[in-house]
Amino acid sequence: MQPLESLALRHDGRTLWILDQTLLPDREAWLDAGDPAVMVELIRRLAVRGAPLIGVAAALSLAWHARSGAAPAALRQAAAGLRSARPTAVNLMWAMDRMTAALDAGGGIAALEAEAAAIFHQDVALCEAMARHGLGLFGSGEAVLTHCNSGGLATAGIGTALGVIRRAFEAGRVAHVYVDETRPLLQGARLTAWELAKLGIPHTLITDSMAAILLRDGRVQRVLVGADRVARNGDFANKVGTYGLAVQARYHRVPFHPVAPWSTVDLACPDGAGIPIELREEAEVRGHGALRWAAAATRAWNPAFDVTPAGLVTSLVLDRGVLDGERLRAGALAGMA
Amino acid sequence: MQPLESLALRHDGRTLWILDQTLLPDREAWLDAGDPAVMVELIRRLAVRGAPLIGVAAALSLAWHARSGAAPAALRQAAAGLRSARPTAVNLMWAMDRMTAALDAGGGIAALEAEAAAIFHQDVALCEAMARHGLGLFGSGEAVLTHCNSGGLATAGIGTALGVIRRAFEAGRVAHVYVDETRPLLQGARLTAWELAKLGIPHTLITDSMAAILLRDGRVQRVLVGADRVARNGDFANKVGTYGLAVQARYHRVPFHPVAPWSTVDLACPDGAGIPIELREEAEVRGHGALRWAAAATRAWNPAFDVTPAGLVTSLVLDRGVLDGERLRAGALAGMA
Repeated sequence: MQPLESLALRHDGRTLWILDQTLLPDREAWLDAGDPAVMVELIRRLAVRGAPLIGVAAALSLAWHARSGAAPAALRQAAAGLRSARPTAVNLMWAMDRMTAALDAGGGIAALEAEAAAIFHQDVALCEAMARHGLGLFGSGEAVLTHCNSGGLATAGIGTALGVIRRAFEAGRVAHVYVDETRPLLQGARLTAWELAKLGIPHTLITDSMAAILLRDGRVQRVLVGADRVARNGDFANKVGTYGLAVQARYHRVPFHPVAPWSTVDLACPDGAGIPIELREEAEVRGHGALRWAAAATRAWNPAFDVTPAGLVTSLVLDRGVLDGERLRAGALAGMA
Repeated sequence: MQPLESLALRHDGRTLWILDQTLLPDREAWLDAGDPAVMVELIRRLAVRGAPLIGVAAALSLAWHARSGAAPAALRQAAAGLRSARPTAVNLMWAMDRMTAALDAGGGIAALEAEAAAIFHQDVALCEAMARHGLGLFGSGEAVLTHCNSGGLATAGIGTALGVIRRAFEAGRVAHVYVDETRPLLQGARLTAWELAKLGIPHTLITDSMAAILLRDGRVQRVLVGADRVARNGDFANKVGTYGLAVQARYHRVPFHPVAPWSTVDLACPDGAGIPIELREEAEVRGHGALRWAAAATRAWNPAFDVTPAGLVTSLVLDRGVLDGERLRAGALAGMA
């Protein structure tokens, strides 16, 4: 296996390492994650996360499993287990389909490793393509708002929405990034702020509830978010809070752009109603990590994602180009396959 | 001094005790809080909070100070210090005005104690009056959404918005309460959920970012919030996140009702632009209490309140009656003085 390296994933040719994102920003701990059973657990507890990255990581785990001597039947079983580790992100299913297709074609260890490496390298290229297409959206020196984490920690490359923002910053088109902390798991506060600091991009952290006043006061010119699954009609699932942000952007007439690679588009899913939404532990809402601030008996509701209708999208940035809201709602995605 | 008791404040005739709300729900610690210098600190660090309650607590602290032998000049200085402890809530200024008026009238210790006790008892009565007027808003068995804490912990009585909800629950008009956790200081998760549990009112905790999908899905029939200051034109300041919630309620056509006693109305303030907004420590956004989850160097923005325009108000519930949005915007508040 060729060595591979991204912000949150490393393959030294022998061992697959995953950066435990639950410990960021204060600790950078790398976990030996080749074994698919271990990978399923890392995906479930969000040690590895981001729709594109979990697809890449699951494919590499399957290749590692093959190199370790797993028979085709065991590989198929492992692929099924990985596929069900998170229900909303479609990239995971897409990556597992590619790996099992390679297996079906009679591919051996080298073929599976090549396919996983191809998924990795393609994700890197998709990120750059999204950034290239997205650049045209911006004026000069804009302030933008983003939610959750859609950067180098969520992909094998520079990211989806945050990758676009990064290249736009380098081009002088973005000057400042406002970061929603993104309760309950605080990916904005823990991960996006950490990435932006590493990149030297000026940024300000806010609670999710403060976004509305920034938009009202004209302090943000554009909202960019990632996506975990885009349905055929342009509805898309993303981290919970995205729908509310889209409503605020519409109400305050601020452009709103989801950014996603083609691997996130699920043409088999006609609309948002068909996207399964993962419900997570109530405890995540009662506190954070080991700290609980609500009473232990307090009941909570914890959908990990929500669905934003295509009607609230100004334009969708894909690696294949930018689709404006009107064309998106007219069904243009199906024609891009 | 006559004994007084509310959910978060006790006067045993000699000592003024304050329930430290920063330790709820897990610890109920009462602090000796008569000394105005102590009270200022408790108000600043939100150990005592809630626009009506801080007015009551500050008045009782001033009476305690008089009983402890403070001269009129010292009392005036203490009143000025208390008045500036929090800039947004107008009830504090209103209570200090009443106490200094009693002092100006040559009132002695007993007069100051009587005035502070009157402020306490009036607040109790105002809460019941708001609840009585608010009851007419509800249908039967409604689910409602609230933000921050506006209950028995925020007033000397049953609360403002949460008091209305409590009486509506007792009348069978409310069946379930959704509680915004209310970042950054989590008054919803820590305080409102605790009060609702004590009262036996079914409730579900959500992150602030989940409110939009509840409203979209018709799972909430009404939104009720407190207020820290209501301007003459009906614009009002309340805990940060209230404005965004008002936008969501409008977008999803769900009635939105601020609830406030007359002591929260500031007719000298023409509109929301005149309400000072307290900016608090960035560290409150980087974590919670001793736990920090964003990098220590991350910059954050932390306005404690935001202003909701009267245009987003379905009706304002006052102790003097319910004012519908149209009358509110037509300037009816000024005529109610």
